[in-house]
Amino acid sequence: MTAAERPSYHPSTFTPLTFHDAVERFARGEDDPTRYLERCLANIAEREPIVQAWVVRNEGGARAAAAESAQRWRRGQPRSPIDGLPVGIKDLIETRDMPTQMGCEALRGNFPKRDSALVQALREAGAVVLGKVVTTELGGSHPGPTTNPFDARRTPGGSSSGSGAAVGANMVPACIGTQVGGSVVRPASFCGNWALKPTYGALNRGERLGSSQGHIGVHANGAEDLWNVAMAIASRAGGDPGHPGLYGPLQTPAPVQPQQLALMETTAWERLDAATRQAMEEVIAALQEQGVKVLRRADTPELEALEQSIIRCSKLNGDISAWESRPSLASLHEQHPHGLSPRGIAKLERGRRMTVHDYRRCLGEREAIRLGFAGLAPLADAVISLSSPGPAPVFDPDGARPTGDAIYNYPTSLAGVPVVSVPLLAVGGLPVGVQLVGQPHTDARVLGMARWLAASVPAIRVEAAA
Amino acid sequence: MTAAERPSYHPSTFTPLTFHDAVERFARGEDDPTRYLERCLANIAEREPIVQAWVVRNEGGARAAAAESAQRWRRGQPRSPIDGLPVGIKDLIETRDMPTQMGCEALRGNFPKRDSALVQALREAGAVVLGKVVTTELGGSHPGPTTNPFDARRTPGGSSSGSGAAVGANMVPACIGTQVGGSVVRPASFCGNWALKPTYGALNRGERLGSSQGHIGVHANGAEDLWNVAMAIASRAGGDPGHPGLYGPLQTPAPVQPQQLALMETTAWERLDAATRQAMEEVIAALQEQGVKVLRRADTPELEALEQSIIRCSKLNGDISAWESRPSLASLHEQHPHGLSPRGIAKLERGRRMTVHDYRRCLGEREAIRLGFAGLAPLADAVISLSSPGPAPVFDPDGARPTGDAIYNYPTSLAGVPVVSVPLLAVGGLPVGVQLVGQPHTDARVLGMARWLAASVPAIRVEAAA
Repeated sequence: MTAAERPSYHPSTFTPLTFHDAVERFARGEDDPTRYLERCLANIAEREPIVQAWVVRNEGGARAAAAESAQRWRRGQPRSPIDGLPVGIKDLIETRDMPTQMGCEALRGNFPKRDSALVQALREAGAVVLGKVVTTELGGSHPGPTTNPFDARRTPGGSSSGSGAAVGANMVPACIGTQVGGSVVRPASFCGNWALKPTYGALNRGERLGSSQGHIGVHANGAEDLWNVAMAIASRAGGDPGHPGLYGPLQTPAPVQPQQLALMETTAWERLDAATRQAMEEVIAALQEQGVKVLRRADTPELEALEQSIIRCSKLNGDISAWESRPSLASLHEQHPHGLSPRGIAKLERGRRMTVHDYRRCLGEREAIRLGFAGLAPLADAVISLSSPGPAPVFDPDGARPTGDAIYNYPTSLAGVPVVSVPLLAVGGLPVGVQLVGQPHTDARVLGMARWLAASVPAIRVEAAA
Repeated sequence: MTAAERPSYHPSTFTPLTFHDAVERFARGEDDPTRYLERCLANIAEREPIVQAWVVRNEGGARAAAAESAQRWRRGQPRSPIDGLPVGIKDLIETRDMPTQMGCEALRGNFPKRDSALVQALREAGAVVLGKVVTTELGGSHPGPTTNPFDARRTPGGSSSGSGAAVGANMVPACIGTQVGGSVVRPASFCGNWALKPTYGALNRGERLGSSQGHIGVHANGAEDLWNVAMAIASRAGGDPGHPGLYGPLQTPAPVQPQQLALMETTAWERLDAATRQAMEEVIAALQEQGVKVLRRADTPELEALEQSIIRCSKLNGDISAWESRPSLASLHEQHPHGLSPRGIAKLERGRRMTVHDYRRCLGEREAIRLGFAGLAPLADAVISLSSPGPAPVFDPDGARPTGDAIYNYPTSLAGVPVVSVPLLAVGGLPVGVQLVGQPHTDARVLGMARWLAASVPAIRVEAAA
């Protein structure tokens, strides 16, 4: 490996593409959304041959939308803080101007020609819907072609593979992702993104309501773009049916220092690589230096109870997902006998082996995890943990987890609690995220704490063992 | 009006087409599903020109399915108690062999070629999926062509118009309906059906998850078919994602006498026609003769609290439905500017006038209704009320409610509590249902009480005032 090929991500030297700080120049006429978009397209032209984050782009439509946005900025009448922001939409979500193929052979050419609720909201807010970004097959474990923007031999994570990689490669300042198990926060961790996996139900899923754990999430290169995109959706399209939607101010919440955090280890803690574990211990030490008390599992039975509740979270997440997707996978498989990957067929068979009684047992186990997080409400301002058990692994198409392990993400997906992931660490020259986890509906407060964390804890870089 | 044209429904002389009692003859070889289906088709041929319950039928597919079922019965290996039961599917729900056009011009020719989860379950149970039955436009208020089977000048109710009418006209022993506001129980009341509107989430909605009040319901001509169809779905497809599904035994629950019932008046009570009110008072008198105590609103503050909580249920239901359907209506309207009725467009505009804050207020009001029902848990075995404010009205396409008033249905739809409607009354020669309403997940117990009600309270017939 030559020096040029060596992964060299460092959180304090990486220069992220952001949007919120560009609009001041739009207002002064020194820049405009058309020029901003062209810079994105130039980055895409340079990086896409290796990164392969996009399934399809509507560049003509995007240029037209950017030109209209530029006129609004010139008139001093932008529709929102994200007017003109180029955004990529995970290819599970419907767009009227591009197909929605879900990384699935059976859905090749699928083109419903309608915008999902969140896409309607983004367009209403003036955002420039540039294209569809790669998802694993149906958001499952069968990977797409996308590579990690900091090391092409490695996975970008999944299932929001293109969302994480496009933001990490500075192709666009934000992407929409979705998460049932670990599909937003894991790729964000591997690709150096900020990410919001909000409270369950907080962002309108439109047609994607088939999972009782499905969340719309946002990937961005900073807290402001993250919040502005989320609020553009929430204030226009609201949340899922029956849910109150994302609570919080229109403006990005100010940084706020937590007083007490609780460290979630998960079953991965004992098998972390030494560099990742050292990096996380350095975060904890830095927090303590700042006067933040960090509870560890031996300190309080409530934290130990959370850890106990999540021991089987990987199997639980897989069972719930298999049962809930059984009818739709069965239809796809019947219509297109060769249209699902072996991993997709295995998931269908897993669901078919279950009964409604098995599923009810799963719902009970999931409720126990919710209570595990609830028990910490009086003890900690947030839970803190790694966003993934180390940096992105080298891609192994035949491995058990080709897009990496979601062990740090299943608990919060199962519980429906809000997560903000911050690109705080570099391990062996690759990004690793740290996540803050709040009680339901505290998304805005969690983001404020995440901003404080990013501003107050120095970026931590640890070399991997040789 | 000649005597022949006069409505002449009477619950004790109406001979309903049922299935559960036919299977004994299947087992003895005296009848079989093919002959059963042919009798249904003969009834359809006779009644359909006036009733117009069906959008499309796959008679060839149904005959093939019935022949396979007949072989299973001959071998003594039926798949379930409903093996061979001909069923109609409301045209909001997807079937692989027939289009799904939702009573909507914009969806003319829509043909996704896949079975919804409940249709998969029904086929697995051996049911004969005969065709798609008429829905109002998208399950809203714009009516289809169906007429009331007991008086063609009158509405069958809606939105499950074809489901109610096909069962009432003895075309099939059961149909699948759906209810967001009053779309199962109201047509069941108007068409003399038994109906189950289960606990929210109890029967798998498949792709129809866009409403936080959407329920799959069953229309049938008796308690046994009602329960057997519901359990065939629940035991195979389960409930909605995140819900435990319908609880109860596989066999139809035995009749059970309630000790105490609570009468729900709603705001319609004071404006009921005299005959309907007299009929309901006779039900109460008959219950009291049988030793059942019937609480009335003056008897207990908890019942008065329920009545207070539902005063604005009609507006509340309309607001929730308008907000939740706004994104999908917006897409349809954009794609097909002439594809929605004026009522459909008015609903879209109503949703567009709302904000997420309005919707949150609605969720709070809805929660108050849930608490209204919950408050009765220690006081009454069930709530009892009319299923509709009188018999089916004469069809008025330009009226405010062309398919009738759902005032007796909104409260239970909003609260998600289970309902069984029983065809107990005849008012002016037309059917009117009486409903029993339980606490969440007591569906099986409510059905047992409904069976007792049907068996123990004499059918009540009241002539309308001249």
